Amino acid sequence: MKQMLIDDERLARQIDFLVEIDRLKHVLRRAYLPGTDRNENTAEHSWHLAVAVLVLAEYAAEPVDLARVVCMALIHDIVEIDAGDTFFFDAVGALDKAEREQRAAERLFGLLPPDQADGFRAAWDEFEARQSPEARFASALDRFMPLIHNYLTEGRAWRQHGVRPEQVLAMTTRIDPGAPAIAAAARALVAQAQAAGYFDAVGETAHAS
Amino acid sequence: MKQMLIDDERLARQIDFLVEIDRLKHVLRRAYLPGTDRNENTAEHSWHLAVAVLVLAEYAAEPVDLARVVCMALIHDIVEIDAGDTFFFDAVGALDKAEREQRAAERLFGLLPPDQADGFRAAWDEFEARQSPEARFASALDRFMPLIHNYLTEGRAWRQHGVRPEQVLAMTTRIDPGAPAIAAAARALVAQAQAAGYFDAVGETAHAS
Repeated sequence: MKQMLIDDERLARQIDFLVEIDRLKHVLRRAYLPGTDRNENTAEHSWHLAVAVLVLAEYAAEPVDLARVVCMALIHDIVEIDAGDTFFFDAVGALDKAEREQRAAERLFGLLPPDQADGFRAAWDEFEARQSPEARFASALDRFMPLIHNYLTEGRAWRQHGVRPEQVLAMTTRIDPGAPAIAAAARALVAQAQAAGYFDAVGETAHAS
Repeated sequence: MKQMLIDDERLARQIDFLVEIDRLKHVLRRAYLPGTDRNENTAEHSWHLAVAVLVLAEYAAEPVDLARVVCMALIHDIVEIDAGDTFFFDAVGALDKAEREQRAAERLFGLLPPDQADGFRAAWDEFEARQSPEARFASALDRFMPLIHNYLTEGRAWRQHGVRPEQVLAMTTRIDPGAPAIAAAARALVAQAQAAGYFDAVGETAHAS
């Protein structure tokens, strides 16, 4: 890749970081985009999640600093550049997920000037820990968004990876702490998806077309 | 597309909006992503721009409400779902761009509950008008980001569309009102790109490989 020569060392580091995270546009998620035959990538997902934070802010379980939630949404997955996307229902991948992502956070945020590296890393750590109202709300919507995609693609990623409705229902309980009304909507969608046969193997029922 | 049945009418409208803007992931821009053979899409671009707002905040020409700048970055291009992406250097497309985008803004933000429709529309109008410090800064970075992609792809989109260095240099003057230091870096990049032959037709010089 071409070297860009920027005199100011601080600005050069900041632009290096922006160039490096461009690669998030090539990290593919399990979800399929409705109306197409391609998977969503993580950069697109992060944009969609950040807009969802703004649109669904009123459903946060507790008062939140919305700017901080949006910041978390924007950077919560950049570690996937090094660590890859680990499917929510992948028990094996989950085993070393935390370690892989910690190393990735170290390297990626470390590209920034130290003061900014610390700030973004703190936001990422906060998101991962899911202890603050902001992190719980960001995390709740992060879990809700794939449900929309799966519903609109008639459960395509669920079927492809053998995900069962019980697993998705269990996942929705992790939406409750951040956004209970969204968790309720999620459960309603799972019930509709189940009734429509979206969890059935292709050919198993007439609905799973 | 499958109808999702969500009892709460307000939440149903908000989710309809989020489903509709999913289509921004399929709107292609002129810029090519470094290291690949595909164009950037507008959803990815909006994510990258929003992160750039956070990372480059210190270069805003005036004090800005950063949360508002990020909001503008996230929604500034959603009108492209209806109106398509108009290349910055496309004089013909520019003729009816404003009218097409106004109609798109009406329809898309109109999907939201009225109070939110008004709020997001106001942010979009503010971005378009480029009169506030927030809009000028968001707009400055919106103009800077494609320059990075063009530089890193050795001017691929510039050459493909016959863009001349004088045009890009003129564009950089529109970065100055929002972020003068970024405008200066942009001009340095254009000079390097010109020296490296990135504006030359393929085969015109040995540099344009």
